[in-house]
Parts: sequence; structure tokens; C-alpha cells
Amino acid sequence: MLDQLREYMLGPTRFMNVLSCFELGIIDELRRNPGSTAVELGAVVGARPDAVEQLLHLPVKDGLVAYDVETGTYLLDGLAAVGDEDLHRVLAIMNATKMVVLRQSFYLTESVRTATTVGLKTLYGHDGNLYEALEEHRDLRDAWATMMDTVTAHIDPWFFDNIDIPPGSKVLDLAGNTGLGAILAYRLTSAPNVHVTTFDLPEKQAECLMNFKAADLEQHCSFIGGDAFHAVPKGFDVVLIKHFVDMFDKNQVLTVLRNAYQALNPGGTLHILGPVYSENLEESYGADFFPTYFLGCTMGQGGPQKLSTYRRWLQSCGFSVTKAIAQDLAEMPADALVAHGILSATKFA
Amino acid sequence: MLDQLREYMLGPTRFMNVLSCFELGIIDELRRNPGSTAVELGAVVGARPDAVEQLLHLPVKDGLVAYDVETGTYLLDGLAAVGDEDLHRVLAIMNATKMVVLRQSFYLTESVRTATTVGLKTLYGHDGNLYEALEEHRDLRDAWATMMDTVTAHIDPWFFDNIDIPPGSKVLDLAGNTGLGAILAYRLTSAPNVHVTTFDLPEKQAECLMNFKAADLEQHCSFIGGDAFHAVPKGFDVVLIKHFVDMFDKNQVLTVLRNAYQALNPGGTLHILGPVYSENLEESYGADFFPTYFLGCTMGQGGPQKLSTYRRWLQSCGFSVTKAIAQDLAEMPADALVAHGILSATKFA
Repeated sequence: MLDQLREYMLGPTRFMNVLSCFELGIIDELRRNPGSTAVELGAVVGARPDAVEQLLHLPVKDGLVAYDVETGTYLLDGLAAVGDEDLHRVLAIMNATKMVVLRQSFYLTESVRTATTVGLKTLYGHDGNLYEALEEHRDLRDAWATMMDTVTAHIDPWFFDNIDIPPGSKVLDLAGNTGLGAILAYRLTSAPNVHVTTFDLPEKQAECLMNFKAADLEQHCSFIGGDAFHAVPKGFDVVLIKHFVDMFDKNQVLTVLRNAYQALNPGGTLHILGPVYSENLEESYGADFFPTYFLGCTMGQGGPQKLSTYRRWLQSCGFSVTKAIAQDLAEMPADALVAHGILSATKFA
Repeated sequence: MLDQLREYMLGPTRFMNVLSCFELGIIDELRRNPGSTAVELGAVVGARPDAVEQLLHLPVKDGLVAYDVETGTYLLDGLAAVGDEDLHRVLAIMNATKMVVLRQSFYLTESVRTATTVGLKTLYGHDGNLYEALEEHRDLRDAWATMMDTVTAHIDPWFFDNIDIPPGSKVLDLAGNTGLGAILAYRLTSAPNVHVTTFDLPEKQAECLMNFKAADLEQHCSFIGGDAFHAVPKGFDVVLIKHFVDMFDKNQVLTVLRNAYQALNPGGTLHILGPVYSENLEESYGADFFPTYFLGCTMGQGGPQKLSTYRRWLQSCGFSVTKAIAQDLAEMPADALVAHGILSATKFA
């Protein structure tokens, strides 16, 4: 157990040590000039050779970089075998972890006690959640959006491949933000005569309608303003809830699910997309990441659940669950932290 | 390699998730009331049950805490076997890592480029190193001192057990701060008629003399003000340099070693104590911790070296090395990050 506790202790320094080797340009320089000394590396990246030596101890120890004692030179070892796409994805996640998590997580305990994001308040003077802070703070937005691009690039196509939107459906994208989800839904659905309505807070309306116009989809997409926790519009054949239920505690999720039930016509179907924990938590790296991310850095509440938990919650709201599937981490790149899940559930006619 | 990179990504969240379980009092409550539910734990520690559930996923996954699915209750698992003294030490290091490293390490790259502690400047408005910041900022001092107490409690007795101070020696404690090292040196040395002089910046004098008076050692200890990087007083039989050479880059360490050489009478001996890396870095957890700690959070420079490196540096300054020993991490508690070393080196008569 003490060796396990030691591993926790070393997490923050290992993280920043390795990331800093990339940030300083040491890794790029070793790719260009294998066999560089600490003096040569320091001159190129603008750091003292003593500091370069210190920072390369861990990458050498862990096999990312090799060190030749005779010549005092470094070259890429394990990192040489990591492809560009993989490295781009890993660095996007590491940078987002630095920007969104590292300092903010300092305030995790206080954030849990107050159910607010104390780190965003303290470091950015921001009252509210991360998603609101992204709009005001470019450093957060750039880091977060770059990460999300790498995480979600394959997620929406996978979602629409796995759900059924019948021809002529009236679709509601619940908490659909500024309409990008509606546009994707319209485009990735092969069914004819589908109409998609984005439902979100009224202040999203102007930007949402601009997005529909820019996509030339004003005939097929529309916007309704409101609050998903209060009342939602009715009369839909399909309701989509994407990247939303993981952000809230159980009672709030249940409120949204009940409102989605009200929004559906009899026989209509709700489809949920979001990160999920594996049924066996030991297979889930999400459990190592999301609690601190959501409670301390993002929402002050929330966190993903297992598919079986979402299934139970849906049933308690009157739904009949027809599908519950999750990505298999074993088939994803070895650095993947997040498995997404899809739940489909029908309101009986 | 991608799985190795994933481990770096998860370091910060794992660290704060587990530490927060202690900070909130969840672990203490589980010790008092094994078999508590998330609702019961939340009520006692002042957190929502949803947040307690999320925060306990990782401790359950890693075997610190056990979860009973049937009853929805938690109890200590691996943590139950960790003794009070061990846990106190681990928590002291985790808390110091949080206070001194977690947020500050965000600025590691900029700190390396500027050889300053950008994190202390940004977060505390402090221009200077951590040791100066400790005097002004109680939150840093409390966390750092509590950790150092657990790390150094056995170090000074081990040091004095392993060095020889002949009867009648005039001893110089180089960079001896406010005299506590001189007091220890006098008390832990069995030789008679020893006199110990603390050498440090002149502003340390008043507090140092007060400490000698309080210890009733004014007859045996004295203070000389100055700068170890410029000139040091001469005529000593023994020079001690404790917890100092790890704070500086090579050129500055060499300057101090040359000055120590000047301070010694012919035949006199220098004894150095400080953290060292293992000759085989793979056996050294210090390599995972110290570069970020010294470069990013403490000094903007420095870091320990291997005994063989210090030996080479001492020889290049004219010394003859007579002893070079290090603690064996394998014989220390499994959470130990730091092995200390002792080097003794003689100025030939």
C-alpha cells in the first residue's frame, strides 16, 4: 500500500516534468538532431544545460529518451516509435490537463464542499462552470477545444451510426448549445424530411440561428429557448442528449430525463451520448480522471456513471431501454482515458 | 509507450482525488465507522453523496477502500493496514506536494527558461526562492516544515554517526542558516572542546545568536556573516555543508566547494549531506520528483546529483574523497522518495 501511495505523490511532478520537455522543445530538437548533448539542447531551447540534464532524468528512466554515458548524448527511445497522430492527441490531452486541471484541482476539497468550481473563481475570478469560463478565457478555451477535437472527432459519427432516426422525424437536441449538434444530426442522418430543433438557454439563440444560416439549414433546423431543468417543448419523435448527463448529479439528471420523457410523443425515443465508466471500474481510466475533473475543475458536481446506472435511472423515469452500448477501451489507443456510451430508450405508445 | 504517456496524464487527478478523500475526512470517518454509505459519509463530511461516490471510485479501484455492492457500503481496505506513523509521513509529503508543487509546477517551463520560480511570483507575488518565501507565507511554511520534519528526523543523527569530528575541532557550518545545524553538530558530536561557527548571510545573525543563547551554547557556538559564493572565513578543521549543494547548478556548487577548500586548514575535512540520485537512476524516485521541485517550485535551478558526480566535482576542486555513502531506498519505507548521501573529503596537509 505504501508503494501505491508513493505513486500518487509522484503524479504531479512526473506529469509536468515530461510535458515541460515537450513545451521547451527538447523532444522536437532530439527528433531533428539525435545524439545532442545537454549543452547543445540547452543552447537551442533556451535553457541551462544543468536544467536540461535534470529534466531528462525521468524520460531516460522511463525509456522515452535514451542517454549514452560515454558521449553524454541523448536520443529519442520509446518516443521515436510514437506516430504524429498519436503524439498530437496525447499532447492535446496533457495540455488540457495542465490548463484545466493542474492548478484548479488544488481546490478540489473546497469545490466538493461548496459544489462550485473554487479553482476557476480563485485563478480566473470566474463565478460559474468551466463551459461558461471557456467563453471568456481564451487560454482555457484553446486548450480544452483542442483536446475535445481529438476526443470527439470519431464520437458523433459513431453515435449516429448506432441510433435510428426514422424518416420525417421531429428531433429535439436537448441542451444543444449553439446548434452544431443539430447540424451534425441533420447531416449524419440519412433519413429524409427530418427536422431538428436545438433547445438551450435563450441567450444561445442568436448564435445558433447564425450557425444554421451559415450551414444553409434554416429550413431544417430551428431553435427554442428554455431551461432543460424546468420545462421542455413537447411533440417530438426523437430526443437527443449529448455530452450533458455526465455533468450533473443524480437528481438533476433524473429531472432532465423526466423532461425528455415529456418532450417525446408516445412511441418516441431518447438517445443519450456521453462518457461512461466500465461496469468493472478496474477497466476504467475514467475513474482516475473524471471525479477530479468534474468536481474540482469543471462543474463542482457531476461525473459519468456506468451504463447499468443510467439504465436504472431511465427505467425509473418510465423509459424502456432498448440499447446500452459502450466503446471498448481495449480496442482504443493505449492512452485513451474515456469510453463513451450510447443509451436508447423508448416512451411506450 | 502510449500506456506510459497515459500514466503521466493521470498523475495530477489521481493525486488530488486521493488527497481530497483525506482532506474531506472520508478516510477518517471510514476508520471510525466501517460500513458507511455514501449518504452517511456525505452527511458527516459535508459533501453531497454523489460527490462522495465519485471520489471513492479511485480508492476502490486501487484497493485503498473496499465497496460492498449489495449494501452500498464502504470500508477501509489497504489503508486499514497502514500504521499511524507511516500515514502521517505520507500525508505530510502529499500536503507539501500540494502546497509547494501542484500549482507552482504549472510554470515549470517558464521557470526553466528564466531560472526563476515563476510560480511563486505569479501565485504569491514573491520574487525569490522557496526558502525565502517560507518566511513570509505561512501556508507554504507549515506544509513544507511538516514534511521536512518527517524527512529529516533521522537524517542528522545518521550524518553525525557517519562523520568524524576530532576533539578540539574548529567546525564551520557553511550556509548554516540560523544556527540549528551548529547546535545539532555540537550536541551530536561526542568529541570534547569542539567549537562550531555558523556561516550565513549577515541578516541571519540576530536570530542565530538568540538560538545559541536559548540552547545555552554561547560558549561553544558563534556566528560569522558573509556569502558562501564569495569568500568564507579561514582556519577550520572541519567544514559541514548540509542540505545546500542540491539547490544549485554545477558552477555554483563548484564555487562553494572551492570556498570550503579555502576555509579548511591543511589536513582538514569537508563533510557534505544532501539528497542524491542512485547511480542507477531507475532505482531513484528522486528523479521523478526533484527536477520539477527544484527547477519549477523551489529555486529555478539545482537538483541533486549522483554520488559519483559529487565525487568528481570534489576532486576537481582539489579534495581527496574519503567517504561517499548513500541511504539504501530498498531499506526505507516503500513510500520513500529521497535517499540522502554523505561525502567526506580531505584537504591534503
